[in-house]
Amino acid sequence: MPPSSTFPLIGILGGGQLARMLALAGIPLGLRFRVLDPAPAVPAADVADHIQGDYTDPDALARFAEGLSVITYEFENVPARCLTHLGSILPASVPIYPPPAALSIGQDRLLEKQLFRSLDIPVANFADITSLDDLHHHTHPSRIGLPSILKTRTLGYDGKGQAVLRPEHASSLASIYHALNPSGTTPLILEEFIPFQAEASILALRTIHGEIRTYPLIRNVHSSGILRRSCAPFSSFSSDLPFNPADLQQQAVTAATRLLNHFRYVGLLTVEFFIKDGILIANEIAPRVHNSGHWTIEGSISSQFENHIRAVAGLPLGDTAMITPDTCAHLANLVGDLPDIADPAGFLTIPGCHLHLYGKSPRSARKIGHATMLGAPTDPRAVKMHEIASSLWKV
Amino acid sequence: MPPSSTFPLIGILGGGQLARMLALAGIPLGLRFRVLDPAPAVPAADVADHIQGDYTDPDALARFAEGLSVITYEFENVPARCLTHLGSILPASVPIYPPPAALSIGQDRLLEKQLFRSLDIPVANFADITSLDDLHHHTHPSRIGLPSILKTRTLGYDGKGQAVLRPEHASSLASIYHALNPSGTTPLILEEFIPFQAEASILALRTIHGEIRTYPLIRNVHSSGILRRSCAPFSSFSSDLPFNPADLQQQAVTAATRLLNHFRYVGLLTVEFFIKDGILIANEIAPRVHNSGHWTIEGSISSQFENHIRAVAGLPLGDTAMITPDTCAHLANLVGDLPDIADPAGFLTIPGCHLHLYGKSPRSARKIGHATMLGAPTDPRAVKMHEIASSLWKV
Repeated sequence: MPPSSTFPLIGILGGGQLARMLALAGIPLGLRFRVLDPAPAVPAADVADHIQGDYTDPDALARFAEGLSVITYEFENVPARCLTHLGSILPASVPIYPPPAALSIGQDRLLEKQLFRSLDIPVANFADITSLDDLHHHTHPSRIGLPSILKTRTLGYDGKGQAVLRPEHASSLASIYHALNPSGTTPLILEEFIPFQAEASILALRTIHGEIRTYPLIRNVHSSGILRRSCAPFSSFSSDLPFNPADLQQQAVTAATRLLNHFRYVGLLTVEFFIKDGILIANEIAPRVHNSGHWTIEGSISSQFENHIRAVAGLPLGDTAMITPDTCAHLANLVGDLPDIADPAGFLTIPGCHLHLYGKSPRSARKIGHATMLGAPTDPRAVKMHEIASSLWKV
Repeated sequence: MPPSSTFPLIGILGGGQLARMLALAGIPLGLRFRVLDPAPAVPAADVADHIQGDYTDPDALARFAEGLSVITYEFENVPARCLTHLGSILPASVPIYPPPAALSIGQDRLLEKQLFRSLDIPVANFADITSLDDLHHHTHPSRIGLPSILKTRTLGYDGKGQAVLRPEHASSLASIYHALNPSGTTPLILEEFIPFQAEASILALRTIHGEIRTYPLIRNVHSSGILRRSCAPFSSFSSDLPFNPADLQQQAVTAATRLLNHFRYVGLLTVEFFIKDGILIANEIAPRVHNSGHWTIEGSISSQFENHIRAVAGLPLGDTAMITPDTCAHLANLVGDLPDIADPAGFLTIPGCHLHLYGKSPRSARKIGHATMLGAPTDPRAVKMHEIASSLWKV
């Protein structure tokens, strides 16, 4: 507890690495943090008061809500019941940002894609799948066809809860369907397979006054459904693509702006895209800070974490520009294991390499940290950083 | 408590803003922090386990020392008894860095100046004052004379424990002497008054392997004995001075290197200088991170806080260069009061301005935060930042 309790207390639902980095960015602004998370030990506990409890436990929610100035969240699968209960016990002066409507859309791939379509944001063809018959119907070549992707509408992340349906699966759709929907009650969505040339994301902010700012478009590489590396700005990492980077940036800003204004959003929103033939095709939104933006800690004048906190706390936004006009940022995720906690794998011996560990015990397919490097796209130090990160990758 | 207790735990003596910023820099490296401080509420408590207890209380020291990997400190007035006791209870594998010898020298202005002289580091003329007779003797025009400065040898900071003796004080030396030494037992030092043209400091690091790195020389402005603003690199803020900045940098590096090697130092050492006629005259050392280096958080590839932690934790040092070769950094201290905790005085409305609050209740002459701006020496945004900071200054 700091000397003065006059400093605002920010509540975060979820105590993982995103909450940890939000608090690390907000504490220098004089803010204090409390997280609610059912796990007994969480990454944010180093920098925040941790209330251990279930998101729907009224007693835990009451202890969490006591004295907060604002509530935000670090993951999109917050149960609706949690927010309803919080709304019923919070004073009217304590907002929940970003707006829960963005959360409920972000939790459901079908609603999300319907929203993209309604806002004229390019989106892959999709269909609601409520039965095996639906699946057979929509995988017919005259409709979405094969290849396509069958996903659970809710609770998917990092490649979990989805299956690619290839033409050779035409006769085995039933088994894939039942594997994703063993109870017969899991809502599914079928999505057109986009043979994309690149993946991208944009981080965008909106304040309570309606001011909107965006970060430069980010180029992403996933592997086994998990983000492996990100580079920014996209324009500096697109020499292999025959597209106009300024046009891509404009498409991303347009999509993000429509979404932010639709929700009367407050805070940071992430939109992920596939790029095909020069068109950004919206894949999903995350109503929160995002892994693909972790390089903003070193690469941007104000990071995604600081700006999300500024937005939800009602403070003016910081500058979203790169720290210099020609800055390029490389991000590598550390997934799985580390040989040595003290100087993991030698990242710190690379000049200019920034290491971020989340205080998590290593295990397969677990994001335990990331490394950042500022430097030209072909900077040998960045190549070295990515090499080390790849050698550790365990999925 | 983080999920895994395998992450090293760093102990810091003192829980003020320097400990707070050390922990904020070290937590992303996967390190955890514990501070010992007698105050009930301290700035570092937001980011570290706080043991409340006196620095000489064996019980508090035992609780503090339990499970630590290394001990460091954030202020130079740690009682010798504290370190002696810690030395007696710590396992041999747990070091105290920087070495306590640097602490005891840094606590005593006489020993400090004697060390400068022995290392051939330019220093103002000085004399040990153990009696009023000594004072009359050394203020004689044939010796140090007047003007000069009478200081307590120990426990002075931010302009406290010192008095400027001007020629008109020749007949009232006794009253000034007794005001600084009411008990008759306070050891004093008389120092030559240096009519300096500028003030400067350097931050320098040494690892356990003897590697040394330095940050660019910093230009400082004090007011009422308290650091008011700092700018770096000195070379970009010296157009009013007829000195060769590269030569000044070299003098500072030479002085710091001699001191680091003398102590077989581990961690960050600050040396403060007066500049007179192109010569750096050493004024004092601080065996710790330093207020004049707070701009390194935004202005340097690795900050003074991260690098001190890397050094004492036995990790490789980070790059001490500015984030780009032409980066200039401005630092303004917030001393006294703030009109509004939420967006104090509008700092956050200045594009690119970074605000750091320490979680302290405002009061006169108290450092409650700082603001940083990267930009050219005459950047109007920096001018605005300094104007706001000056308007708040209450000493």
